[in-house]
Amino acid sequence: MTTNVTTVPAYAAPAAHAPLERTTVPRRPVGEHDVLIEIKYAGICHSDIHQARDGWGEGIYPMVPGHEIAGVVAATGPGVTKFRVGDRVGVGCFVDSCRECEYCLRGLEQYCVQGGTGTYNALDKNGEPTYGGYSTHIVVDENYTLRIPEGIGLDEAAPLLCAGITLYSPLAHWQAGPGKKVAIVGLGGLGHMGVKIAHALGAEVTVLSQSEKKREDALRLGADHYHATSDPETFTALAGTFDLVLSTVSAPLDFDAYLGLVRTDGALVNVGAPEEPVEIGLFSLIGGRKTLAGSMIGSIAETQEMLDFCAAHGLGAEIEVIAADRINEAYERVIASDVRYRFVIDTSTI
Amino acid sequence: MTTNVTTVPAYAAPAAHAPLERTTVPRRPVGEHDVLIEIKYAGICHSDIHQARDGWGEGIYPMVPGHEIAGVVAATGPGVTKFRVGDRVGVGCFVDSCRECEYCLRGLEQYCVQGGTGTYNALDKNGEPTYGGYSTHIVVDENYTLRIPEGIGLDEAAPLLCAGITLYSPLAHWQAGPGKKVAIVGLGGLGHMGVKIAHALGAEVTVLSQSEKKREDALRLGADHYHATSDPETFTALAGTFDLVLSTVSAPLDFDAYLGLVRTDGALVNVGAPEEPVEIGLFSLIGGRKTLAGSMIGSIAETQEMLDFCAAHGLGAEIEVIAADRINEAYERVIASDVRYRFVIDTSTI
Repeated sequence: MTTNVTTVPAYAAPAAHAPLERTTVPRRPVGEHDVLIEIKYAGICHSDIHQARDGWGEGIYPMVPGHEIAGVVAATGPGVTKFRVGDRVGVGCFVDSCRECEYCLRGLEQYCVQGGTGTYNALDKNGEPTYGGYSTHIVVDENYTLRIPEGIGLDEAAPLLCAGITLYSPLAHWQAGPGKKVAIVGLGGLGHMGVKIAHALGAEVTVLSQSEKKREDALRLGADHYHATSDPETFTALAGTFDLVLSTVSAPLDFDAYLGLVRTDGALVNVGAPEEPVEIGLFSLIGGRKTLAGSMIGSIAETQEMLDFCAAHGLGAEIEVIAADRINEAYERVIASDVRYRFVIDTSTI
Repeated sequence: MTTNVTTVPAYAAPAAHAPLERTTVPRRPVGEHDVLIEIKYAGICHSDIHQARDGWGEGIYPMVPGHEIAGVVAATGPGVTKFRVGDRVGVGCFVDSCRECEYCLRGLEQYCVQGGTGTYNALDKNGEPTYGGYSTHIVVDENYTLRIPEGIGLDEAAPLLCAGITLYSPLAHWQAGPGKKVAIVGLGGLGHMGVKIAHALGAEVTVLSQSEKKREDALRLGADHYHATSDPETFTALAGTFDLVLSTVSAPLDFDAYLGLVRTDGALVNVGAPEEPVEIGLFSLIGGRKTLAGSMIGSIAETQEMLDFCAAHGLGAEIEVIAADRINEAYERVIASDVRYRFVIDTSTI
């Protein structure tokens, strides 16, 4: 095992609410089971902005965001068996977990009782902060590294590591497929992957978006139907229609209205979430044995399954590739919903 | 088919908020597929009080409550094939449904799209009001009539028709059984049946009740564990413990706290429900792919399954049998939670 800490270029927020700027951060030595990844692309997730700007509480600064990472293996530790130099790989929202709790042992590491180790804005097991994908290199345990199949560009693959799995996991868990009616609420970075994946799974897909603006896009991405939620008629016309309503929005919704769209025994599942508590009338659930649920990313095994599924179906994210010096501008555009549908940083520009 | 309307004794609320009093109400002629039931016992459900006192909106008066009905077949229509005179039978919360919607066709009549026909405080298909079980006789279609197996007293069977099925259905649907940890919140008319049934299904049962008062009862009824929810330690000690938390209380709970008791992939299911909207932090669901759900009584087939299950396991409700002239007093005691655990009216006293 080498012991050299490497210093690598990165873009970091030096403090809460400060713009991101170029800097360098340390990467741990490549350990027995580690791979050194030369990052090629890193997606910009809305939660990067939340965290960089301290929207979720105590941030660790300097903070290098980025948990939608695609690259190539540049070196491997002596014990690595899963990857070789040159392999196309990805890293998602976590880079380690306790490996001992029942959820880790059952392959549900995303629900690790100890919370796992975030790809950034977390403390690694060695006590050092983790730094994310807005950087040229990262060192990750091979067991938390994914294989990106041939046939997907690394640029369009990067957002699959968070946006892709965040939608794939609940679609798979709640059995979206032939004969099932699925609504995707919100057509952004998450929602557009939901449409593609739900369509590829064989479900009948409806997009529910605030206005008519994204109708054409939605249909092009694979939606069978499109309805504007600003039209109250939508909620009466579609009452009791969907087996699964998957909400990707973090604005507070009228949850009782959305539960009205769900069939008996159906589910309204949230992957986006308002930070404030929401109000629910429990009779909205009781009257049709309905489920209100949440889902958070996916396990390592399921993320690999998702990547393989996307490659088999030719699915990647719709992206706008940017140079690193446009990250702050991109953040503003994400907040303004002015991106179709994911910014991806070309990390060679860092 | 006979055409004579029969008039039968009953206890009714003459108007909203008025005490119940003895009266008579009409029963429709015994039609082709109807059975005339001589009612022996009728349970008092909390929702009787809500409805009689107009807690749920527009009531139809005079109102004869009672949807926990046990009796004996006194006559049958010429087309009846399922029952004979003398059979022990029960009637639950609904006496008809549209029979055409997908849920009726799939045997989930409780979720009939048209809402079904309530046993009381509803309009029957003939346009006449329905009158419930606080009465000596009732006429019900054989397809909405249940068979009460030998081995359960009709008095202790009556509450199974609502309280029993209300708990059995979610316990069965969410697969309470060996290896599963189930919490029953609230030990009243509903909760005590939940404990008995969950225990008989083989689950490890915990009762969560406000105070220590009902500990002994809970353990006697089949609970393995008992915790007072007034003790904040309960919520830390039991964090992430239960596959299923079944709430029978209609008081507003701290739902985020109760969701904290649920395991990853577990469910908090409400069969009692506050009338006011409740507040939920969606991160309580997302962090463990948890479900907040509701469940409403059960289908005809499932109610029969429940009655057969209860008979096979020797389960009946814990009851206090009263004469009809004590109904108003019993209502006050139900509201004060001063009943262990269900009042049942001996309808021979009407």
